[in-house]
Amino acid sequence: MDKLIEKIIEKNNPTVAGLDPKLEYVPSYIIDKAFEEHGKNLKGAAAAILEFNKGLIDSFADIVPAVKPQSAYYEMYGSAGVMALEETIKYAKSKGLYVILDVKRNDIGTTASAYSCAYLGQTDICGEKVRPFEPDSVTVNGYLGTDGIAPFVKDCTEFDRDIFVLVKTSNPSSGELQDLMLSDGTVYEKMANLVNGWGEGTIGKYGYSRVGCVVGATYPEQAQILRKVMPSVFFLVPGYGAQGGGGKDASYSFNKDGLGAIVNSSRGIMCAYKKGDFDEKDFAAAARQECIAMREELNKWR
Amino acid sequence: MDKLIEKIIEKNNPTVAGLDPKLEYVPSYIIDKAFEEHGKNLKGAAAAILEFNKGLIDSFADIVPAVKPQSAYYEMYGSAGVMALEETIKYAKSKGLYVILDVKRNDIGTTASAYSCAYLGQTDICGEKVRPFEPDSVTVNGYLGTDGIAPFVKDCTEFDRDIFVLVKTSNPSSGELQDLMLSDGTVYEKMANLVNGWGEGTIGKYGYSRVGCVVGATYPEQAQILRKVMPSVFFLVPGYGAQGGGGKDASYSFNKDGLGAIVNSSRGIMCAYKKGDFDEKDFAAAARQECIAMREELNKWR
Repeated sequence: MDKLIEKIIEKNNPTVAGLDPKLEYVPSYIIDKAFEEHGKNLKGAAAAILEFNKGLIDSFADIVPAVKPQSAYYEMYGSAGVMALEETIKYAKSKGLYVILDVKRNDIGTTASAYSCAYLGQTDICGEKVRPFEPDSVTVNGYLGTDGIAPFVKDCTEFDRDIFVLVKTSNPSSGELQDLMLSDGTVYEKMANLVNGWGEGTIGKYGYSRVGCVVGATYPEQAQILRKVMPSVFFLVPGYGAQGGGGKDASYSFNKDGLGAIVNSSRGIMCAYKKGDFDEKDFAAAARQECIAMREELNKWR
Repeated sequence: MDKLIEKIIEKNNPTVAGLDPKLEYVPSYIIDKAFEEHGKNLKGAAAAILEFNKGLIDSFADIVPAVKPQSAYYEMYGSAGVMALEETIKYAKSKGLYVILDVKRNDIGTTASAYSCAYLGQTDICGEKVRPFEPDSVTVNGYLGTDGIAPFVKDCTEFDRDIFVLVKTSNPSSGELQDLMLSDGTVYEKMANLVNGWGEGTIGKYGYSRVGCVVGATYPEQAQILRKVMPSVFFLVPGYGAQGGGGKDASYSFNKDGLGAIVNSSRGIMCAYKKGDFDEKDFAAAARQECIAMREELNKWR
């Protein structure tokens, strides 16, 4: 987590810009050009979102520490979309950004290891070691227990990477399972305890482990509890902006050191040009302006 | 689920053949040929696993009702691997097989919808409707509650597809979270109740809903409980064979009608040629023999 924290300190900005490029978010002149070159098909769509992503990354790479591509918005364009995801990650890394790939993968044993090869470690092709995707970290789902997480943690340690485990998600129905009471607390508190255990022995120089967690900004009360339960765990906080969470709501995820959390905004940044007086050709300038506003808002509260 | 059940009845076989093509499972002559054509890289590896899959599918397509590609083993070869996954699904469908794509996806709202577009529904490219991947069903993880499942169920109804929700997984540590006691049963029983609810209104002509579940063969006691709790839910049963579950263990997942479950074997079928007197060129014959043995074993118990 040290790499991420250093970038947050350097840019004085605890924001991660979500890259969830639905085609309806992409300015029409970019779409037209992509369709002209590749056709009105999955390839054309993938080319459009990659172009859009590059413009966004260029606009904020000097003021934002991290990006979070959401895999679903690439998989929906098939293997062409997954190729655009590979390229997006590469481009973001080349601009010095820390990349959190939001894939929420989960499986057991050798299958979890295969996912970890894909995203954190490396794939062994009869002796040739290759990195298929190159993010710094991924999100994972811990419903399957330690068997599903340990292979990722192993690669985190070996290859200097991190994971974020879903603890309390930002959606309205997250409580259906996560808020249920066990004999000694809720299901999400139990998950928090597991997260503490999984991160043991991986604490970096700022006091945070390589096993972070996801805690929605839409649940500030739960965030306060969880901040105490997991003092050494870095929080990835979705739900800011479009989902209804504000700077104050997000603030409960920070520690007293002003660190401990990074807050995501996707639509708010990507679609900033759709609000106010922007021409769609100014999508990048609008995104940058939104990133600055978000930085100022979050820094008020941490 | 009717489509799957019809194929099970027609072939008198409740087996799903897992397609988890780790490179170490692939006969060396296939790998050599693929590397010669594409190089010893991600593309070469992807070509090898696709060729292997086609051979396997050809060997058992007339006796097995379904295949289950595990996405992790394709993602580990990057977008080239994902392309091999697309082709594998297409090939299996062209041979009349029901395809369960094991992706265990999970997210909320519009993101869950994007995953559902990718795998069950269709992607809208400015008016052109495209199906990126073409499985009949996917596995999903319900930790995020109804928001994460409803978008999939909607597409199941609209496009005649199914999902399988993780309830009790086959791995040793699955109990860490899933077995914990709530006020009125365990976490996995609560998930089972949610699954019942999500499937309501989608019951087909054989009495099963479009929302199936995953229950490991390695936990026969829990399977017995769950079979009673979810009478209208179809079970996808991993853990047979290599993971330690036998025919008797799997039998608890069937209903009295002899239906209600499909049992997965991956390594056992794919690597059948590594046991006994087979030459690696006979991998397909070995796989077929294993499929027949598994059919006979399962039919003894249901």
